[in-house]
Amino acid sequence: MSVRIIGTGSYIPSCIEKNENFYNHEFLNTDGSAILGTNEDIVAKFKAITGIEERRYINQELVNSDIAFYAAEKAIEDANIDKETLDYIIVAHNYGDVKFGSEQSDTVPSLASRVKHFLGIKNPKCVGYDLLFGCPGWIEAVIHAKAFINAGIAKRCLVIGSETLSRVVDKHDRDSMIYSDGAGAVVIEESNEDGGIIAHETATFAADEAHFIYFGKTNHPEITDQRRYIKMYGRKIYEFALKNVPLALKNCLEASGFGISDVKKILIHQANEKMDEAIVKRFYKLHSMETPKGVMPMTINILGNSSVATIPTLLDFILKGKLEGQEINKGDVILFASVGAGMNINAIVYQH
Amino acid sequence: MSVRIIGTGSYIPSCIEKNENFYNHEFLNTDGSAILGTNEDIVAKFKAITGIEERRYINQELVNSDIAFYAAEKAIEDANIDKETLDYIIVAHNYGDVKFGSEQSDTVPSLASRVKHFLGIKNPKCVGYDLLFGCPGWIEAVIHAKAFINAGIAKRCLVIGSETLSRVVDKHDRDSMIYSDGAGAVVIEESNEDGGIIAHETATFAADEAHFIYFGKTNHPEITDQRRYIKMYGRKIYEFALKNVPLALKNCLEASGFGISDVKKILIHQANEKMDEAIVKRFYKLHSMETPKGVMPMTINILGNSSVATIPTLLDFILKGKLEGQEINKGDVILFASVGAGMNINAIVYQH
Repeated sequence: MSVRIIGTGSYIPSCIEKNENFYNHEFLNTDGSAILGTNEDIVAKFKAITGIEERRYINQELVNSDIAFYAAEKAIEDANIDKETLDYIIVAHNYGDVKFGSEQSDTVPSLASRVKHFLGIKNPKCVGYDLLFGCPGWIEAVIHAKAFINAGIAKRCLVIGSETLSRVVDKHDRDSMIYSDGAGAVVIEESNEDGGIIAHETATFAADEAHFIYFGKTNHPEITDQRRYIKMYGRKIYEFALKNVPLALKNCLEASGFGISDVKKILIHQANEKMDEAIVKRFYKLHSMETPKGVMPMTINILGNSSVATIPTLLDFILKGKLEGQEINKGDVILFASVGAGMNINAIVYQH
Repeated sequence: MSVRIIGTGSYIPSCIEKNENFYNHEFLNTDGSAILGTNEDIVAKFKAITGIEERRYINQELVNSDIAFYAAEKAIEDANIDKETLDYIIVAHNYGDVKFGSEQSDTVPSLASRVKHFLGIKNPKCVGYDLLFGCPGWIEAVIHAKAFINAGIAKRCLVIGSETLSRVVDKHDRDSMIYSDGAGAVVIEESNEDGGIIAHETATFAADEAHFIYFGKTNHPEITDQRRYIKMYGRKIYEFALKNVPLALKNCLEASGFGISDVKKILIHQANEKMDEAIVKRFYKLHSMETPKGVMPMTINILGNSSVATIPTLLDFILKGKLEGQEINKGDVILFASVGAGMNINAIVYQH
């Protein structure tokens, strides 16, 4: 018995926010002081580190559960299944539905219930819940689905990662340029075929790391309201990730029984191109190898960091032939890996 | 192999809000019109239906993750385990951390990460995540823990239900009197003893039901800001619960192999005393029986509806001998049942 992904779908918001759109922003340091240099310089430096040229924001009339539904609909269609046969709908997100112009997160009912409502699924035994686990939420939700299947309480699950970070950004913070909106979904089922999810690994680091990504005040000293925004200590996250993610990948690969030369692709959470390259480089260095060319497909340049959505979106792009020069073929061993708020790290070895 | 609760803990906020404290509130109908009768009449009618005489609110300086931690600490102490041996920390809640005077939910990092941080657990393999599933979230988190144990990826889990509804109530809505704050926690582990979780059942009804409990505007027509509050269609929920919860309980009991006469206690989510009595009455009627005296222990009169916290808190009270006339003894078969936003329903047959 194996647990396999049988369909994928994604939703890419239509509003393109280019780096140039940030030229008029007033970026400030966390202490409220001005950042040296022109905005053109700030943006160029940002681009050089993160790889991000543009990102996507959802239309004003939409909220997170809408785009979760759009991605889900496509995954169900791609899997070619009867939606009433789903045992679970799991939605990984972090901020719920935040309406445009509002600062409140709406999480009741759960986004999973909303998606089930939009999908029109009648079967009450199709259980919908939301999982909060930082950016690694979608991988963790896949691990949940596998656990439910292995425990004998599910056969088929819809697993969605959906986020609208544009609704929680501080426009006076340079890091706001990182964040993006998007949704990706997969249908996962019990299968008699070989392959699927071979091994997985999860860790939560909650000492000092617990607050590396947090909800904090604007950098603008004259704005004194209580509103909070997504905030992070980038340098600390970089060091943390570089230390811990390669080891998690190595442990997970060892547990799978596959060797490093079997790995065809690494689909890693896309938060920062330079960081991801450094992580993958170190992972290969642990195996005394150089990073193989093309092993780490990326969409961050055009999609930014859409949190839980980056990996399922990337997978969908590759499988649908939408990412030039990248493909995943039957039997290919791929790694999924993520790191994010919590701080949480996880990885999956998957044979397509 | 069985899956058993080996320790319980709860946190009851120290601020008592008596029904009399609502005598000066301006209660309005959803259309903004005044409610006929004096507030004393409104409160008396409320008390007659819900059974609630007083409820608890957390102190102004606290947030949800603080009280989740307090309950967790007690459950770990009660279980007499090394906290570093926990494989999971699962926190069921619905609104995250809402600071006093703020309207924003803070959910990043997850409340589970915050609890892990407060507990000082170093082991990174102890995975913390949050589950959003309406009021049935704590029971669902217990089902998750069992699935992880059955799937072989956990041996011991900390399962918390914690909520601070006082931070999301509309004071112009009579229903605001229902809501309360509280936290309950249990430690669950794989065991060689008999008993434990024998059967479970979950359902999500997301057609019209999806929005029976929702985030809505104040009833006050002159307050035109965008702020949203917990809202519900009480009559619809009553009818829905009365139709579906007794059947869920019956199915779950049948799946367990136990008979109706084996049931010693029913620990049901406490949202409304009259509704709970009607549900249990119908459950027994499905077995051609009258409700046995004392089968449904209640704390709603003094604790109100604290969402995900009502059942673990109630269990802790009984096991610690804090609820007069109520006890659970070794080998007793008890039912857990809940209904809430989603709309979700779940039940567990548990042998102590």
